Amino acid sequence: MYGAGDVRIETVPDARLSEPTDALVRVTAACICGSDLWPYNQMEHADPGRRMGHEAVGVVEAVGVEVRTVKVGDLVVMPFAYSDGSCELCIEGLQTSCIHGGFFGTSDVPGAQAEAVRIPLADGTLFVLPVGEDDALMPSLLTLSDVMGTGHHAAVAAQVGHGKTAAVVGDGAVGLCGVIAARRLGAERIIMLGRHPDRIALAKEFGATDVVSERGDEAVERVRELTGGLGVHAVLECVGLGQSMRTAIGIARPGGAVGRVGVPQDEAMSASQPAFYDNITVSGGPAPVRAYIEELLPDVLEGRIEPGRVFDRVIGLEDVPDGYRAMNEREAIKVLIEL
Amino acid sequence: MYGAGDVRIETVPDARLSEPTDALVRVTAACICGSDLWPYNQMEHADPGRRMGHEAVGVVEAVGVEVRTVKVGDLVVMPFAYSDGSCELCIEGLQTSCIHGGFFGTSDVPGAQAEAVRIPLADGTLFVLPVGEDDALMPSLLTLSDVMGTGHHAAVAAQVGHGKTAAVVGDGAVGLCGVIAARRLGAERIIMLGRHPDRIALAKEFGATDVVSERGDEAVERVRELTGGLGVHAVLECVGLGQSMRTAIGIARPGGAVGRVGVPQDEAMSASQPAFYDNITVSGGPAPVRAYIEELLPDVLEGRIEPGRVFDRVIGLEDVPDGYRAMNEREAIKVLIEL
Repeated sequence: MYGAGDVRIETVPDARLSEPTDALVRVTAACICGSDLWPYNQMEHADPGRRMGHEAVGVVEAVGVEVRTVKVGDLVVMPFAYSDGSCELCIEGLQTSCIHGGFFGTSDVPGAQAEAVRIPLADGTLFVLPVGEDDALMPSLLTLSDVMGTGHHAAVAAQVGHGKTAAVVGDGAVGLCGVIAARRLGAERIIMLGRHPDRIALAKEFGATDVVSERGDEAVERVRELTGGLGVHAVLECVGLGQSMRTAIGIARPGGAVGRVGVPQDEAMSASQPAFYDNITVSGGPAPVRAYIEELLPDVLEGRIEPGRVFDRVIGLEDVPDGYRAMNEREAIKVLIEL
Repeated sequence: MYGAGDVRIETVPDARLSEPTDALVRVTAACICGSDLWPYNQMEHADPGRRMGHEAVGVVEAVGVEVRTVKVGDLVVMPFAYSDGSCELCIEGLQTSCIHGGFFGTSDVPGAQAEAVRIPLADGTLFVLPVGEDDALMPSLLTLSDVMGTGHHAAVAAQVGHGKTAAVVGDGAVGLCGVIAARRLGAERIIMLGRHPDRIALAKEFGATDVVSERGDEAVERVRELTGGLGVHAVLECVGLGQSMRTAIGIARPGGAVGRVGVPQDEAMSASQPAFYDNITVSGGPAPVRAYIEELLPDVLEGRIEPGRVFDRVIGLEDVPDGYRAMNEREAIKVLIEL
């Protein structure tokens, strides 16, 4: 990506091992993330461009001399952040804050919308999948690298639990996975705030019980009507705009919680009304998806959840620029790149 | 209070029952709250003035015909908010958001820095104390109406627990009670951020293990030095200014929580760095002290906690104007009004 709207497929030097803790992964499936659309809309032109992508499944082609738990030939899923797996914060399950970790798709660590990707700290980062690379569950397994784990994180941070009422702000792929997660964690009622008919239909199949298509104050009013005037216990904020955060706080019930995973695009949020006076908890951040893979994988393997259904378009690597366009124009929910 | 710096003692019509659910309480002990100092510094002149005060212990003098659980002669503590005790939110323990409730010291419900106070929704609001009005524990019992419950709420919202490291931002009476609460909930290490020698000395007696007297970025750096670079698990924000909130978020460890009880004086707080990227939870609000009385009272009665020690000056009603001045000039930590 060289700037807003400017995505190109280019031949670059082959990815290769550079640290003894690295692995080299041949990508078999990758995808485009909703968060990739922020730079797609706003990035200033830069030379060299940014090598995008932070979600992939692939096969290990080579490992550094210090790699112990991952071996050549393993099919692996990569979380969107790399992590050593051994620092205090990794052990606590917050790998996105790993003391030695970082994120893919930066100048130091090129991204996964590519034929191959270098994985730093391979032992702590990669998760070996117990299936073959042509497994029919591949789309759902791929979601464990970000979108499903992120939806789950929103639900965890929003303190979804049995019998609670949840609301999901945003009908993108993360919001849809948020519906899956909220249902999986026992929410009795799940209100989807969104307005795209295809996404709403999928949200209902995933477990949404109510749909609110209004926005702003009208959305807040509508959710309050649906909840006896009080609002919902758990709000999953899956957008990241100031307006969506205000809506999220506005529909939270006193004492409720907002779990936010949308990367914040505005700097300030209201510190007082009603988050403070209503004792609303605001939590969340980048999802430690590496920690969640273990929890979510059995449900994917046994078909209890099908997050892969958020992919409604499959393209080849050469079509990635058009994939960005399609997601940006809401023509596709989420694009899978097959290699 | 007629405006900033303008507190007067005046003879007003006697408080009396107006609703069948009211009780009339003769105040035996009241106090001045840190939050009273915000209007003391900023309030525009108003006629009629505001009848201040939201913390008191007293004796029930009369009850309305619908009052069932409180009777004439009972010694009671009033929480700073009144509540029906029966709505969904009261039952959940969030009486400050009671559907029919409200706060003392407003134009509808005059305050408790007075000889007597009308208590709306007396059954849900008042807590009957099992001691006499001359009990030596009275200062500590009085703190259950606000300051001790508020410090406890900060600790609960900050998710203080056994073995965790906590920090308290603000060395006022709430912050000092926050130290008591953090210790009571099992914090292994408690860092007090403050700079007044008398308050710091008391904080240490209450259980503070470390003191940081720097402010702003230097305070953040110092706390990080004390905690191996990571910050603390639980931050009790007991001030309410933008700067103190930034410090609170700055010293929280990734994945940690900030429990805020300082009434926010600034509208906006940073929504992104580092609260979002570090997955820091921001929680708290007005403390449901009515819910906490039951939990804290046995510890007060058995002398395990001594929050009454935050009172370092006792005055009569006629000296309330000077009590405001003394607290505002940090000459007194907290002033008890004896009637």
